[in-house]
Amino acid sequence: MRNLRDVRPILLLLACTLFLAKGSAQEPDPLPLLVKALDSGRIVVVDLTHMLDEETPYWPEGRTVTPFKAKVVGTYERNGLFARELEIPEHFGTHIDAPAHFNPHGWTVAEIPLERLIAQAIVIDVTQAAKGQEEYRVTVEDIKKWESTHGAMPSAGIVLFRTGWGKRWPSQKEFMKQDAKGSPHFHCLTVEAGRYVMKQMKPVGIGIDSPGIDRGDDHTYPLHHLTLDANTYLLENVGGLEALPDTGAILVVSPMKLAGGSGSPVRILGLVTNPSGRLSSK
Amino acid sequence: MRNLRDVRPILLLLACTLFLAKGSAQEPDPLPLLVKALDSGRIVVVDLTHMLDEETPYWPEGRTVTPFKAKVVGTYERNGLFARELEIPEHFGTHIDAPAHFNPHGWTVAEIPLERLIAQAIVIDVTQAAKGQEEYRVTVEDIKKWESTHGAMPSAGIVLFRTGWGKRWPSQKEFMKQDAKGSPHFHCLTVEAGRYVMKQMKPVGIGIDSPGIDRGDDHTYPLHHLTLDANTYLLENVGGLEALPDTGAILVVSPMKLAGGSGSPVRILGLVTNPSGRLSSK
Repeated sequence: MRNLRDVRPILLLLACTLFLAKGSAQEPDPLPLLVKALDSGRIVVVDLTHMLDEETPYWPEGRTVTPFKAKVVGTYERNGLFARELEIPEHFGTHIDAPAHFNPHGWTVAEIPLERLIAQAIVIDVTQAAKGQEEYRVTVEDIKKWESTHGAMPSAGIVLFRTGWGKRWPSQKEFMKQDAKGSPHFHCLTVEAGRYVMKQMKPVGIGIDSPGIDRGDDHTYPLHHLTLDANTYLLENVGGLEALPDTGAILVVSPMKLAGGSGSPVRILGLVTNPSGRLSSK
Repeated sequence: MRNLRDVRPILLLLACTLFLAKGSAQEPDPLPLLVKALDSGRIVVVDLTHMLDEETPYWPEGRTVTPFKAKVVGTYERNGLFARELEIPEHFGTHIDAPAHFNPHGWTVAEIPLERLIAQAIVIDVTQAAKGQEEYRVTVEDIKKWESTHGAMPSAGIVLFRTGWGKRWPSQKEFMKQDAKGSPHFHCLTVEAGRYVMKQMKPVGIGIDSPGIDRGDDHTYPLHHLTLDANTYLLENVGGLEALPDTGAILVVSPMKLAGGSGSPVRILGLVTNPSGRLSSK
């Protein structure tokens, strides 16, 4: 009896260990957990997309009026239903540059693999450094600072730059800040910073809250070529970046499925773990 | 000593039980699990969206040519970049009807709460019943059959009807099957079936692989009114439904963020647990 009593605790410990080990080998299916977490408000959906209408800022070179039109073709009174037809450039509002925008051999917008449209996001915040500046250019040092806080950047993610430029939306004048020659100016990236991100992270996409990562007056577009030639897509005029944590969010980037398209207005939704756990409005 | 030895197993059991109880009360954060599962291919992304181009079927009443245009405004040779401007109706291709399409007090497309754009999907398959029929209308019995197999439908989900009509895409003639008066005909729902789904499930959205859930020649649109008046959105011309399981997928429904819009072309991406666990192409 005494021997049996001695091994009993060991047997129990073994059983518990085996049970726990089995639990971690076969991780739970994330989808039912996600449904539950969305229901309870533990995970919230955030919108990284600006509104599309006649007030939406547009690239100003060669244009003085908005290229967006929404023509009402059905009304409740006349037709019993409300409907419109749109005129809209592929590169308008919060939008995606597909690799084919600059790279004849790159994916068109409909060809971007689905796995690249749902990815984890990291946010590099430079609002303090950019404050009060007319054209701040993100440096390699800014990115190294992020790395020293958060560790190495994960690969195959989406790198987003929060510069503070988004606060100027939707003022065409303030968002595009044209110089005497008509070229726009805004916060963007140094070529070295762009190279560093591409090398360190091999991201599926790079986004920014301004009109783009290249300087507005550099018509050689060095970073558009660098990224799109590597099939990394670009997200421009990204909204709502304040709602994203530095790491941990998952983005769903949804362009229209335009056959042969160079880009598209996108809806970008983010899944964010809500530490306060408040209930959603669903 | 003997007494201590007696309680030892009980203490260990208690500790293990507490540990396990804590584990289940605080469920793991689904987002890191989702990233991992997408990386390993345990969860795959499927596309429920048809391609948008000049060949995309369009609603034929009052039209004989496509309302879609993509005008090239930049070429690699001339401009160093490729870009287009689009003409596109709000209700074109795989698209969403916002409540405001029929309901003056309903949400416009930009007003649909984000929580309703990411939801679990159930698929009701009627392809066998519809086979060979020119205009099959889903019955209450079809839905009850689904319920008898899968149990009660979850609420606040997206109900999708797979009728087989999608196989006719992108033939304008076969997809719209106009009668002598010009009205289109396609697989749709009986009014009773629509009522039953609304009552049983209170879905955030209802979708179908045909042009709509109402009969094409019924210009009173009873089911559009019933659903949109209850702020349930509609998804029309949904593609790729073969890739969805009957239950368990999560959909991300992404319309353009059109201020005051009655609807929009949508990208619909689905997250599906892949039982075979094959590696993704990422």
